[in-house]
Amino acid sequence: MTEVGTTGSAAQRLDRDDPLAHTRDRFELPSGLIYLEGNSLGALPCGVKERVADVVTREWGHDLYASWNTAGWSDLPERVAAKIAPLVGADADEVIVADSTSVNLFNLLAAAVRARPDRRVVVVEPTTFPTDGYIAASVARTFDRELRWCDPEDPLAAVDADTAVVCLTHVDFRTGRKYDETAITAGVHAAGALMLWDLCHTTGAVPFDLHAIDADLAVGCSYKYLNGGSGAPAYSFVARRLHAQLDHPVTGWWGHAEPFAMQRDFTPRTGIGRLRVGTAPLLSLVALDTALDAFEGVDLALLRAKSLSLTGRFIDLVQAHTDLEVVTPLDPQRRGSQVSLRHPQAFGLVRALSARGVVGDFRTPDIARFGFAPLYVRHVDVDAAVEQLVAVLDGAEFARPEYAVRQSVT
Amino acid sequence: MTEVGTTGSAAQRLDRDDPLAHTRDRFELPSGLIYLEGNSLGALPCGVKERVADVVTREWGHDLYASWNTAGWSDLPERVAAKIAPLVGADADEVIVADSTSVNLFNLLAAAVRARPDRRVVVVEPTTFPTDGYIAASVARTFDRELRWCDPEDPLAAVDADTAVVCLTHVDFRTGRKYDETAITAGVHAAGALMLWDLCHTTGAVPFDLHAIDADLAVGCSYKYLNGGSGAPAYSFVARRLHAQLDHPVTGWWGHAEPFAMQRDFTPRTGIGRLRVGTAPLLSLVALDTALDAFEGVDLALLRAKSLSLTGRFIDLVQAHTDLEVVTPLDPQRRGSQVSLRHPQAFGLVRALSARGVVGDFRTPDIARFGFAPLYVRHVDVDAAVEQLVAVLDGAEFARPEYAVRQSVT
Repeated sequence: MTEVGTTGSAAQRLDRDDPLAHTRDRFELPSGLIYLEGNSLGALPCGVKERVADVVTREWGHDLYASWNTAGWSDLPERVAAKIAPLVGADADEVIVADSTSVNLFNLLAAAVRARPDRRVVVVEPTTFPTDGYIAASVARTFDRELRWCDPEDPLAAVDADTAVVCLTHVDFRTGRKYDETAITAGVHAAGALMLWDLCHTTGAVPFDLHAIDADLAVGCSYKYLNGGSGAPAYSFVARRLHAQLDHPVTGWWGHAEPFAMQRDFTPRTGIGRLRVGTAPLLSLVALDTALDAFEGVDLALLRAKSLSLTGRFIDLVQAHTDLEVVTPLDPQRRGSQVSLRHPQAFGLVRALSARGVVGDFRTPDIARFGFAPLYVRHVDVDAAVEQLVAVLDGAEFARPEYAVRQSVT
Repeated sequence: MTEVGTTGSAAQRLDRDDPLAHTRDRFELPSGLIYLEGNSLGALPCGVKERVADVVTREWGHDLYASWNTAGWSDLPERVAAKIAPLVGADADEVIVADSTSVNLFNLLAAAVRARPDRRVVVVEPTTFPTDGYIAASVARTFDRELRWCDPEDPLAAVDADTAVVCLTHVDFRTGRKYDETAITAGVHAAGALMLWDLCHTTGAVPFDLHAIDADLAVGCSYKYLNGGSGAPAYSFVARRLHAQLDHPVTGWWGHAEPFAMQRDFTPRTGIGRLRVGTAPLLSLVALDTALDAFEGVDLALLRAKSLSLTGRFIDLVQAHTDLEVVTPLDPQRRGSQVSLRHPQAFGLVRALSARGVVGDFRTPDIARFGFAPLYVRHVDVDAAVEQLVAVLDGAEFARPEYAVRQSVT
């Protein structure tokens, strides 16, 4: 593809001048692969395999139970949370690492409706990542509230004086559309409701300043742009001013003020730690702990600039060389760190690209999705990905029979 | 200690004739340590470190997202559950591995009260492992029911026609007392209530036949006698006859009939898989998967016989050579796989023993607790442990100042 190929030297220049070029060396990337799926499963950071091996062999195998003290297992969720906090503009003691995003959502949404007992409505966005809608519906039903689906383009229109809490995903998993967190949070607060931000597709690629917007509640996952490994535990943020009144339903023993006092009645920890539930999955937690070191010294403004440079270049090249619909907002202010393209045979398109060494993913019914993890994706990867995309389209490879069969997960 | 020492040859004979002697080779045990804490954190099974390293390096690092298909990550919780099922007398499709014990308890207790809408009472045992009480209290409050603490010695006395569900821990974490699951389940059923068994201190050491007692619901943890590693995911059992009506509140996307259809509304899977919540913590899950292979070919009746031989011998020697109170029932029918001893300075006792290479643990206020994992603890370990215990008592080592300081977790 000469049209795309000629841009190669420009991409190389951009990479040479990239102030975050060095962070790519913090990952163990398979050679020859253009991995544009860090928005789903982040790449393996350097040091993780050594750390996990040490935890298995020495901390678990040799030191056994003593490691609760000697290796600091007890407060590891707090220490890992302290590494996430600066990535979301929070203080360390406002973030806790625990369980899955779904469990954190359940606890925080339930606490939110309890904190607004005189308000009946839970507002959620119908095209959000489904677990958010499922959990919001369940919380509404469990606590006898009304679930109200908002207009994705105008969530505030659904918020009124009867709204207890609004739950929105900051960056949409399907389209990559980014909400204006400042305006929406202010609008929700003006209505007297609480705002819960789902930052799963934000943290680690798009800066989010929870303090700056006076945020109430947030959740996020750790295996996308945070690179913690599949199913690594999620995190919750609760603004300090809400800690004392936080009344969550999944009250596990690790959230007790004195877990080893083994008391009959639940007395929560004074701070965010009350959201700990059961014993954290150690191996996944230590992988995340080491993975977060890849962000050491990274300026979040540079991270965002790099992300927009990558997604902007991808969009420009796609528009210049294909007639695919770009679903993701062209306005960089409204864009996360992924680009979604629409194609009637998007599934075959993704598989044909994968056979050519470009990994994106498919989201039903017709979306091909490409994530640009700014710590390890380069501008030359963008060019090469579009080059392969053009080849797949030119050869109609998306229509090949071998790419039509759905695998269990793709 | 000659009194204890002279029993050594008898212990050696017992070990030589032990039909499960070979399973000790399935673990990587630190040399010189007598580990009697497998009831808290099971030892490291062979093969785990290689499996975890392969998953980190190849499945995650090299194959990345493709591993959802190529490495079978999607249905790994079902496949791991299928290995646990025969240890609890269940069919594979009645067990699922997910989240922590606390989250599973919340989901099953909530589903139980929803299944008995005309009954107001949740019965729970006040000396149970605290998370069970915390979660039961939270479920009772959330669903506007009454929490009723039963007499630990006679739980059925608290069960009546207004009881929705009874939650009991089969083997008590503090005392090692084992309930008669057959009689209690029958009594609860006779009252028209549902029974939820917590098998955390049972599975992997004490056989439990869920089908034989027509059980309703159960939960269990996987890092004690199942040796999955700290915080490895827990499991839930739901009898097949209850699957269709199971209505749980933490409805995560992995419990959806078609997770990747990304539908707005929650339609649960038809079977036990509806209790999956978020993405499972992969590294902890694969460690558990490999760990369970240590049970391959193990006859559960032999496992129980070995466990009782170990705990019985420990009790006999303690009674013969010390004046410590044995808190654990002397009747083997009422005993799990641990022995608890009472001592006013139990904390110092445990620490002094640890300094002598015998690892047990302390439970507040005055319990020294010793677990006997029948897959890897030997009769000679029992004798050596008592020998050290007698030495600690004779030398009043439990009173040494350096053993008085509480560490954060013990």
